[in-house]
Amino acid sequence: MSNNSPALLGITIGDVCGSGPEIVTKALALPEVRALCRPLVIGDSAVLRQAYRITGEPGQVRSVNSVAKAAFEPGTMDVLDLHNIDLAKLTYGRVNPMAGEAAYEYVVRAIELALVGKIGAIVTSALNKEALNLAGYHYAGHTEILRELCGVTDVTMMLVSQGLRVTHVSTHLSLRQAIERVKRERIVRVAELTRQALLDLGMKKPRLAVAALNPHAGEGGLFGHEEVAEIAPAVAELQKRGWDVTGPVPADSVYWRALHGQFDAVVAMYHDQGHIPIKVLGLFEGVNVTLGLPIIRTSVDHGTNFGKAGKGTANPTSLIEAIKLAVRFVKGRRRQTDA
Amino acid sequence: MSNNSPALLGITIGDVCGSGPEIVTKALALPEVRALCRPLVIGDSAVLRQAYRITGEPGQVRSVNSVAKAAFEPGTMDVLDLHNIDLAKLTYGRVNPMAGEAAYEYVVRAIELALVGKIGAIVTSALNKEALNLAGYHYAGHTEILRELCGVTDVTMMLVSQGLRVTHVSTHLSLRQAIERVKRERIVRVAELTRQALLDLGMKKPRLAVAALNPHAGEGGLFGHEEVAEIAPAVAELQKRGWDVTGPVPADSVYWRALHGQFDAVVAMYHDQGHIPIKVLGLFEGVNVTLGLPIIRTSVDHGTNFGKAGKGTANPTSLIEAIKLAVRFVKGRRRQTDA
Repeated sequence: MSNNSPALLGITIGDVCGSGPEIVTKALALPEVRALCRPLVIGDSAVLRQAYRITGEPGQVRSVNSVAKAAFEPGTMDVLDLHNIDLAKLTYGRVNPMAGEAAYEYVVRAIELALVGKIGAIVTSALNKEALNLAGYHYAGHTEILRELCGVTDVTMMLVSQGLRVTHVSTHLSLRQAIERVKRERIVRVAELTRQALLDLGMKKPRLAVAALNPHAGEGGLFGHEEVAEIAPAVAELQKRGWDVTGPVPADSVYWRALHGQFDAVVAMYHDQGHIPIKVLGLFEGVNVTLGLPIIRTSVDHGTNFGKAGKGTANPTSLIEAIKLAVRFVKGRRRQTDA
Repeated sequence: MSNNSPALLGITIGDVCGSGPEIVTKALALPEVRALCRPLVIGDSAVLRQAYRITGEPGQVRSVNSVAKAAFEPGTMDVLDLHNIDLAKLTYGRVNPMAGEAAYEYVVRAIELALVGKIGAIVTSALNKEALNLAGYHYAGHTEILRELCGVTDVTMMLVSQGLRVTHVSTHLSLRQAIERVKRERIVRVAELTRQALLDLGMKKPRLAVAALNPHAGEGGLFGHEEVAEIAPAVAELQKRGWDVTGPVPADSVYWRALHGQFDAVVAMYHDQGHIPIKVLGLFEGVNVTLGLPIIRTSVDHGTNFGKAGKGTANPTSLIEAIKLAVRFVKGRRRQTDA
């Protein structure tokens, strides 16, 4: 495969009781998306044919049983068809173990193909955690599946929206537990992963901000000690490497500053600290990227949107942005391999 | 004083080493601001004359020594002149105890005038906490001074920007301590103050959201118990009164939802949770309101902006919005008094 070919993306359709399949038909109908990449949809052909009927988007499904057979022709959607949905049992907007099982199989297949280099990146649609668990897969979500199948532990979630990029020291923990995770070593690791992602995206000298944990960055120790004990030492360690790292920056101004060009990314101290600014900018526009994996994985940054499933009205912006960002990461990795 | 007269506002100039005086000249040069209110600036006339020279705004200072002497004529700024700054010792952009002392005196005078009803509301410019403390006034900021002089304890900070309104269960505490303040009784009290403010602003049936503390609103107790133990019971208690209250709503979506019209205000569980969404929308646009006082007080929602002091370039948006909001509160209170 030539390094100049458009990136080959494996796009999973997620939980088919949600709006994932419909969103995929919308995104792949866009000429700007088709021009950017070679999309291989990983899902169920019958579901996708039904999604086309629902959304009325132009295009037709072409089932394939291997990556090599995908043709990427205009007007068609190549679907790696796992034949794992019985349309008669599909229930839009309702939790369904069949859909949980199927969604798990899509993402596993995508990961396997990415690990052996048959696809350049994975772009995932939303899972329903309850359906996943009812099907017997006890994961909190994609990230946990990715970590296990890729054999890594040290990952971080990056969210991207409108040029704002945020990574997280922790995510799915209580706020009390999240405070305990604010440790120098972890902050340094997340900053390393963040910086690598920015290099992958083509930045030469990424400018990182590390957010504070406490209000006013702890006001010199008056409102909490984590800035002094953990965050400032992490920043100092990163700066010693000659990296452009600023912090701890008060969390109530750091996101505005990044959004207005002062930083290329922000390391957030906990889930909501990073998610609030991203989601205020647009609930269905952000992209979620898992950093620290041996493969490239981007994702929509919203749930299954059960309320819109089967209606053809779901917003595809997040998926479109996830596809574009995956392409940027593929190109960035190629540049580094070539160099 | 007729209830139809424009609201009489006492506008303090804050720390004169910062950009407060310059911002005041810019705001009061706007015909839309002058049409809305009768502004009485509380500060130092010499400082304000110098601010006019720096900003080049049209207008001249008219010193008065009592509220009754203010004339509110077009093209002039009535200044209740406390004569407490020696211009020769004024140092733009540097902490100065003289300025801390003066700023304290401005706000104290404003509070006294509001408490006796000689002015309808206070609008404050930024203090410098260090200067305040060097001058011997050991307060964290305006709020603590207001609480003491008004003799109340139970207040909450409301921030307003672009139609998003957020109040806070706590503010200047470490995040660990803030978690301990997430208690049913305090949440109910903050919701009461929030709802009253919305009624004051003319809303008939305010729709309140109460944010969650933990990510995903605790995911049914998996990521923290405060939603189950404290927040949900508070919401239930408020709903029993027939109030339109929703929660606990995950904090990463509640602000977007409020911004897009689903709620009139959000009760935030801690400082940064409420400040991040407001400040992402604009670092120099938000307004800060203290709820729970016997008087009306709005404020700029930014610091002294020392970096721009003396240069004439500081952004007056936050002060302009603070003036407009103070006028709305004065009108709202009058409606309720009339009713």
